[in-house]
Amino acid sequence: MAEVLQAGATRLLAELVATTRWQDVPAAVRHETVRSFVNWLGCAVGGAPHPGVAAAMRAATAYAGAPTATLLGLGRRSDPVAAALVNGVSSHVLDYDDTHDGTLIHPSSPVLSAALALAEDRGASGVALLEAFLMGVEAACRVGMAISPAHYDAGWHITGTCGSIGAAAAAARLLCLDAARTAWAIGMGASQPVGLRVHFGSMVKSFHPGRAAQNGILAALLAAEGFDAAPDGIEGRRGFAEVLSSAYAPERISEGLGTQWEIMRNTYKPFACGLVVHPAIDLCLQLRAERGFSLDAIEEVRLRVHPLVMDLTGKREPMSGLEGKFSIFHAAAVALVDGDGGEAEFSDARVLAPEVVAMRRRVSATVEPGFKRTQCEVVLRLRDGSERRIETTTPLGSLEKPMSDEALGRKFLGLATPVLGADGAGRLLAAAWSAAERPDLGWVAAEG
Amino acid sequence: MAEVLQAGATRLLAELVATTRWQDVPAAVRHETVRSFVNWLGCAVGGAPHPGVAAAMRAATAYAGAPTATLLGLGRRSDPVAAALVNGVSSHVLDYDDTHDGTLIHPSSPVLSAALALAEDRGASGVALLEAFLMGVEAACRVGMAISPAHYDAGWHITGTCGSIGAAAAAARLLCLDAARTAWAIGMGASQPVGLRVHFGSMVKSFHPGRAAQNGILAALLAAEGFDAAPDGIEGRRGFAEVLSSAYAPERISEGLGTQWEIMRNTYKPFACGLVVHPAIDLCLQLRAERGFSLDAIEEVRLRVHPLVMDLTGKREPMSGLEGKFSIFHAAAVALVDGDGGEAEFSDARVLAPEVVAMRRRVSATVEPGFKRTQCEVVLRLRDGSERRIETTTPLGSLEKPMSDEALGRKFLGLATPVLGADGAGRLLAAAWSAAERPDLGWVAAEG
Repeated sequence: MAEVLQAGATRLLAELVATTRWQDVPAAVRHETVRSFVNWLGCAVGGAPHPGVAAAMRAATAYAGAPTATLLGLGRRSDPVAAALVNGVSSHVLDYDDTHDGTLIHPSSPVLSAALALAEDRGASGVALLEAFLMGVEAACRVGMAISPAHYDAGWHITGTCGSIGAAAAAARLLCLDAARTAWAIGMGASQPVGLRVHFGSMVKSFHPGRAAQNGILAALLAAEGFDAAPDGIEGRRGFAEVLSSAYAPERISEGLGTQWEIMRNTYKPFACGLVVHPAIDLCLQLRAERGFSLDAIEEVRLRVHPLVMDLTGKREPMSGLEGKFSIFHAAAVALVDGDGGEAEFSDARVLAPEVVAMRRRVSATVEPGFKRTQCEVVLRLRDGSERRIETTTPLGSLEKPMSDEALGRKFLGLATPVLGADGAGRLLAAAWSAAERPDLGWVAAEG
Repeated sequence: MAEVLQAGATRLLAELVATTRWQDVPAAVRHETVRSFVNWLGCAVGGAPHPGVAAAMRAATAYAGAPTATLLGLGRRSDPVAAALVNGVSSHVLDYDDTHDGTLIHPSSPVLSAALALAEDRGASGVALLEAFLMGVEAACRVGMAISPAHYDAGWHITGTCGSIGAAAAAARLLCLDAARTAWAIGMGASQPVGLRVHFGSMVKSFHPGRAAQNGILAALLAAEGFDAAPDGIEGRRGFAEVLSSAYAPERISEGLGTQWEIMRNTYKPFACGLVVHPAIDLCLQLRAERGFSLDAIEEVRLRVHPLVMDLTGKREPMSGLEGKFSIFHAAAVALVDGDGGEAEFSDARVLAPEVVAMRRRVSATVEPGFKRTQCEVVLRLRDGSERRIETTTPLGSLEKPMSDEALGRKFLGLATPVLGADGAGRLLAAAWSAAERPDLGWVAAEG
């Protein structure tokens, strides 16, 4: 092990990726991997009708090869590289996918979009897919932890940058590369970091994980062909860590590697918007559920929030469903008015609805630099002068208060039913839960 | 114009790219564009036999669609996205392609690899190709100038990062996108910056311009389909300039735009290695040509060089042709022994030849922080105690002492003849010089 440690972070990750066996991983880790898979699959199918997905599909399939991989929710197949882009976009476009608690990475979109497409193409088993997915998440999140928070704060969309690394690791595993070539693949993934946060609020945000998935597949294909790379692409001089972050903590890559699994810190969104907004929605829903007052009685809604909330979702006057996801003001308002925070509440119609707009204009927010990311306080001031105050540091969907399997299933059906119908959505959900027992992935093409 | 300037750098470049017409560009600019094309084509054909190109071809064509674009020097066609990667690798793998004097960008590899493949696929004319190429070079180099030297110094391979922008601009032009969509394409190119200098010395260095070419094609295809991006991907908050450089000089994008063309600062290598080594080779060849002494008489070769020379090419004991290109010691030695600096002098055989190794061990180098990049001094100390001293700031191939059209032709034939034979190489060269007069690009598939 000392020799491996000396070899550096890239090699250390590559050894893990190339050698870990699904049956040796603790049952809780395997179950969390399946939960992440179920959550991602629902997001991809539910996101498929988005116009950005249609545009991405036309561009990605313009020069596609033989159709061996499924474009989820679209009733079509294409080649695995095209499928990786399309599924990456569809699974992230609703901003409803998973989030790694330590980094803000949405790991499944880049990693599973690469892994599933390649696994279908290669006729891999369910276990081979899940194993590769787990390895990709570990690589992406550990590198992400080592450069957090400086990397994201600098303007990088960490889901795409570390996602390229995770996708490369997963693809390398599916191609059964040895540790040396897996290190090349990881290094080539790291040399294609995508993308920039300037694009948040446009379709390009969801392009990032899709392109990261493609980057990872290409990196692994190249490494498999003997296209050589630096062996130290992460930690080397002018490598990923040095160039893309002002701070690098390599011990976050090595400590507990192979025994502590980052997928255990993956979280799933109960609400269809950025995670930073969830505490406010959760609190507004709790206040609404108290029912001791009517909506008309609300004169003012005062939020106290972590600085990142205003940074990411400070849009005062959203004009579309997408913009609504970047407005803490809309999120709080629609939760109070409609009593939920799903896709329907982030539609164009609800963002522009007069009663929601009226409520939104009563919402104000104050930044609290001392708050945790998950911390929020909501104060409702009523017309009679009274106030309702509520706060949390552990909103629904957080690590401390995770969604149950049953709640994940409901979320899946809510996303997939409009696309596949109730029967189809149910069959796909059942297949996804049992993925590890399936000898192949034929069910994806049949039901997805 | 004031309105356009207010709109920012991305829009400014997009307007230029979308509206400039070949016939309105000065003749000298058009001729330099053709010279760059000729130089690039020779490098791509000459690089085709490299094992890295074969590996890249297998990976890039694994899922290829209909074969509408030429893999130069390989006697094959594939889809334009695959061709962009393969031609990007082959045209850069010898380190023999062009260099923009202001930035160290090798502009043709990413930009032409995208433009030619897409132009062939779309049945474009020679003028349409050259026009798109010129626009891509302008976009890549102007953005590069605005972030130089901080960006490269930080560890970015600027050929790949700015290359993605240039490739996107060229592809957008070939797809006849309007300025707004061209700005999206440029922004999406900028959000896929590839890659990291940690990979210098491995095959991945030449992967960077190849992937940049693919990035640009995808960006333009997406923009054409209405996949929207931030309109200010270069200059916006958390955009390319802010995130990828510690310094940004936007006036380098706007000043003289549309009247001063960066392709006029493009340079072509007379020697088959990194540009920083050229002054030393040029001087060693001049000393050798004096013939006032025999090689055996050389006791010591002392170089004084710019710091970047040791930084990039400081390898003392190269073990392969590729490593020889990263060794100032080998370059000086082989120039003295063999009297040239072409591909043959950077073969495995010459790097390991005893007489070259013996000469190499007599070479020493001192860094001179005050030197210009093109400045070098060589002192030979002979066994009789006498010294020969020579220096330059304008080596052959520099802007001040450019290769002639005829010398470019000789370089082309030297590269292409081993691959295509003398007749085929001659026909391809003649076609390339007359590209602007050709109504289509059928000659590329026939001769390339």
